[in-house]
Amino acid sequence: MSSRVIRFKRPPSVIASYSCVGSEEGKGPLGKYFDFISEDNKFGKDTWEKSESEMQRAALHGAIQKAKISDTDVDILLAGDLLSQCIGSSFGLLDFDIPYFGLYGACSTCALSIALASLIYSSGMADIVAAVTSSHFCSSERQFRYPLEYGGQRAPTAQWTVTGAGAYILGEGGNVTVDSVCFGKITDMGIKDINNMGAAMAPSAADTIKAYFKETNHSPEDFDMIVTGDLGYYGSDILRELLLFEDIDIRDKHTDCGMLIYERDKQDKHGGGSGCGCSASVMSAHILKRMESGALSDVLFIGTGALMNSLTMCQGGTIPGISHLVRFKAKEL
Amino acid sequence: MSSRVIRFKRPPSVIASYSCVGSEEGKGPLGKYFDFISEDNKFGKDTWEKSESEMQRAALHGAIQKAKISDTDVDILLAGDLLSQCIGSSFGLLDFDIPYFGLYGACSTCALSIALASLIYSSGMADIVAAVTSSHFCSSERQFRYPLEYGGQRAPTAQWTVTGAGAYILGEGGNVTVDSVCFGKITDMGIKDINNMGAAMAPSAADTIKAYFKETNHSPEDFDMIVTGDLGYYGSDILRELLLFEDIDIRDKHTDCGMLIYERDKQDKHGGGSGCGCSASVMSAHILKRMESGALSDVLFIGTGALMNSLTMCQGGTIPGISHLVRFKAKEL
Repeated sequence: MSSRVIRFKRPPSVIASYSCVGSEEGKGPLGKYFDFISEDNKFGKDTWEKSESEMQRAALHGAIQKAKISDTDVDILLAGDLLSQCIGSSFGLLDFDIPYFGLYGACSTCALSIALASLIYSSGMADIVAAVTSSHFCSSERQFRYPLEYGGQRAPTAQWTVTGAGAYILGEGGNVTVDSVCFGKITDMGIKDINNMGAAMAPSAADTIKAYFKETNHSPEDFDMIVTGDLGYYGSDILRELLLFEDIDIRDKHTDCGMLIYERDKQDKHGGGSGCGCSASVMSAHILKRMESGALSDVLFIGTGALMNSLTMCQGGTIPGISHLVRFKAKEL
Repeated sequence: MSSRVIRFKRPPSVIASYSCVGSEEGKGPLGKYFDFISEDNKFGKDTWEKSESEMQRAALHGAIQKAKISDTDVDILLAGDLLSQCIGSSFGLLDFDIPYFGLYGACSTCALSIALASLIYSSGMADIVAAVTSSHFCSSERQFRYPLEYGGQRAPTAQWTVTGAGAYILGEGGNVTVDSVCFGKITDMGIKDINNMGAAMAPSAADTIKAYFKETNHSPEDFDMIVTGDLGYYGSDILRELLLFEDIDIRDKHTDCGMLIYERDKQDKHGGGSGCGCSASVMSAHILKRMESGALSDVLFIGTGALMNSLTMCQGGTIPGISHLVRFKAKEL
């Protein structure tokens, strides 16, 4: 076997999904689509890390309720976040009585968890699999950048970590299926600019998209939308250009969750949104809803992650990227 | 489906495994079994984090060579470590041209990665899957405890993070198969003592072992060995006692990778070894070799992890545990 693309013999569907976001995301152009918006970004908790965990809990609880199932119907739970040792997930999902795998894929985690959940479902070894992902602006700033109180100036290319979580319940009976996936390889082009993560991740997105098209003989025009999450404005430009060198023109089909979630001119979010809660909430609240309504029927979703931490940056390290692809297809209405 | 135990219809075998350890581990009772021992714990690198990455690289390279395959024969690579954002894995495995998933399971990662790799193999969607895990005493001390230069006194119950990595190549043709797995649930009994991680993890190990015995109608006497990794001396005592309350007596069969790797009386390692490189290296160098030689034929391996970080401890958090079970069976010689 040398194929990177896995087409599922037993493709799962998205039975339900649920999104929770913070106030800035609620004020953005997708505000009306999210299931839950916290006014103070604290979700009733007293630390930012506990707030992020609470988002994960609320997202999974909401998705389980929407799916009209109970915790114990879920065979396996996959989750991840950006925080060190993935504490957003382990503390957020503590109360669910479900076998649990922790994943780390940085901002690719939403795609990674959906891809892996689909593989597990397709194997027949589980009937209902849940995937949960989150990020929080304030916990990420503490983890990766500066104390919030410091009020550091942001570079124009810097992206803004989305306060958001998304939970997906995969199994039988939903209107959108996961047709196939393509797992990413770690790709390092030597980028070291922590304020331009889009540039660091774009080459891995190009690699995965190219591999998918090559193996499946598809081209961009076969899809209604090619949505990355989250390269932001600058990374998206680089991705489109990198693919043009490969004679793949995605310009008419491409968008990015980090470009969709905030109002560029009004919300002062520089390079756009990022953080694995960005694609997790945007895919649930916006893209999958458009697929369910019939507005979109065949969508490629590519989650893009940067696999560094603050210590590797201090040690002069590069920023390796990874991108996992999930192809969603709407059932004919 | 409400079963936690997955019995594989297409059970994978361990085609090859490879262990790399540091000097302290080399001086321990298993010293002669490890594939590679670094004299200075630096593995030729200039930071502890890069040293840990180099161990992962060397372990996977060694396992691929032992298996007499090449990188491109491996369909999927699963890896994890204890460092924030799993940088041991992402930087260590950068050079391998293999689709990659990052996992986070703290010290349960070796069992988690083997369990998940087995599930993927058994699904038929991959033919060769690799699983790699590491920990490094010095990078872990920096991450979780004190600067090494501070020379902090260690509590008697504190475990010593093993400098070690293990890589496993799963597929067809090896002499030891993965018969079944049982995925763990996050278990929190309210333990907050960072110097007694064994106590924090033991309840989750008891939960997973009990679930396995209950679902399969097996009892401890059906196995040659029940090996946890890594509860150390104190956590192992608690596990045995917790299971006795459930009328499960594992005392004659149980050992722990954290009790095997150092000489208790001579090496001054207090509560024993820990860190996900402990079980990763001990299972490869010692237990699987004993299975291949015919000394053991049916072994339960339970990887035990503590899902906290230094920030959750500062915020007064508990230490949730998780334990994943893998059942290895030797083919009849």
